[in-house]
Amino acid sequence: MAQQEPTSLASYTCPNNGAFAAIQPSKIGFLLDLDGTLIDSVYMQVLAWQGALQRAGVNLAIWRIHRRIGMSGGLMINALAREVEREFSNSEIEQLQLDHESEYAKLLHLVRPLPGANELLATLSQASVPIAIATSGRANKAFRSLEILEVPTGTPIITREDVRHAKPDPDLFITAALRLGLKTEECLVVGDSVWDILAARRARSLGVGLLSGGYGREELVSAGAYRVYDDPADLLDHLDEVGVRSPRS
Amino acid sequence: MAQQEPTSLASYTCPNNGAFAAIQPSKIGFLLDLDGTLIDSVYMQVLAWQGALQRAGVNLAIWRIHRRIGMSGGLMINALAREVEREFSNSEIEQLQLDHESEYAKLLHLVRPLPGANELLATLSQASVPIAIATSGRANKAFRSLEILEVPTGTPIITREDVRHAKPDPDLFITAALRLGLKTEECLVVGDSVWDILAARRARSLGVGLLSGGYGREELVSAGAYRVYDDPADLLDHLDEVGVRSPRS
Repeated sequence: MAQQEPTSLASYTCPNNGAFAAIQPSKIGFLLDLDGTLIDSVYMQVLAWQGALQRAGVNLAIWRIHRRIGMSGGLMINALAREVEREFSNSEIEQLQLDHESEYAKLLHLVRPLPGANELLATLSQASVPIAIATSGRANKAFRSLEILEVPTGTPIITREDVRHAKPDPDLFITAALRLGLKTEECLVVGDSVWDILAARRARSLGVGLLSGGYGREELVSAGAYRVYDDPADLLDHLDEVGVRSPRS
Repeated sequence: MAQQEPTSLASYTCPNNGAFAAIQPSKIGFLLDLDGTLIDSVYMQVLAWQGALQRAGVNLAIWRIHRRIGMSGGLMINALAREVEREFSNSEIEQLQLDHESEYAKLLHLVRPLPGANELLATLSQASVPIAIATSGRANKAFRSLEILEVPTGTPIITREDVRHAKPDPDLFITAALRLGLKTEECLVVGDSVWDILAARRARSLGVGLLSGGYGREELVSAGAYRVYDDPADLLDHLDEVGVRSPRS
């Protein structure tokens, strides 16, 4: 993928130059997270981070790593460093990210699409609902992961390199909405982590939580999820609850 | 360990033959779960079950396995089988359990004590608080896991073979309390899973939840946890909240 200039939030202007415009009730776009939302990769990501951290001499309980997955890698490392009362230099952070990528590459063969992921993408596409995929992961990792999915042609993929700040900042979802020509308020964010839901709220999108990344329902509700479903299959069965007239119905 | 006759619940009689006896406020015993409570093994257990299930041709999203860890293996397999609409014969269940044990044995070298686990055991022991460890796992797996911990001499270890039904049935905790010569009402159950907390309530013990197995705080509270802490270190820092006069204070 060609590297793109990060979208600066300062340069983001409302499509109608700030004049009041009502959200159009019939318009809806889906901004989908990748890991834990479309593919069953969170537990492998967790173990890959644990391996990378151990190489750096950091022993952290695994649940603490789990609860940071989906964040920007840099923010995650800083947050975990605080917990073990240690600081990492920029070069150490870069090395940790590289080690994580190499550990994760060893586990990628275990990763499967989540139940209903391909069907959800196909159904939305058939219903002409605009979709984009927005992940805190870097492009090279994301594109390898996307190979196990059937992503409709032309779906915008927004990765770490496309924005200045990843989740829980709203940049990824703002950029994704822009690519679809929609306002963020017209988009539904679908994600499995608290960071997706927090970023959705900062982008003024409604956030739909999925349990398939291993967070509990109440954690997602507490973060402000509009609705919570088990996995993409369960969301697909309830599309009418989130404003999509499914071609199946 | 010598195999013991399962404790039948029918044969369990109140130590004072059913006559009313107030709970003695100064008496307290700790009944501790093992995986996710004292050792950081839940995520390895999850992947071991996933491997065993895949050998049997069953593909299940990993978070669904995670949420069943801590249950009796047999109940867990039945619950997972229902989710994929499949039935397992007794011999298939036995094979799955054996496959799980062999997959887990490969990952055991990654398992570490959770922060504060050894310190919690030592502190309770120094404070003369009776402790027992009660796990849904089988004895051979449990005793291999216990080798990475510093368990005070004489601590009763209750495993799957000691009872007719494992968690979320209360048998393990009832048996553990009996071994300590305490009423279950005089015991605090410490566990990381919803199944620990549900079993504690059926045993009429107070259940203390730990986040170190990867459940969310609200899931444990919803199941009826009396208090929830991060991990054994956090519980140790708050022993006075649960009735222990710590020798450190």
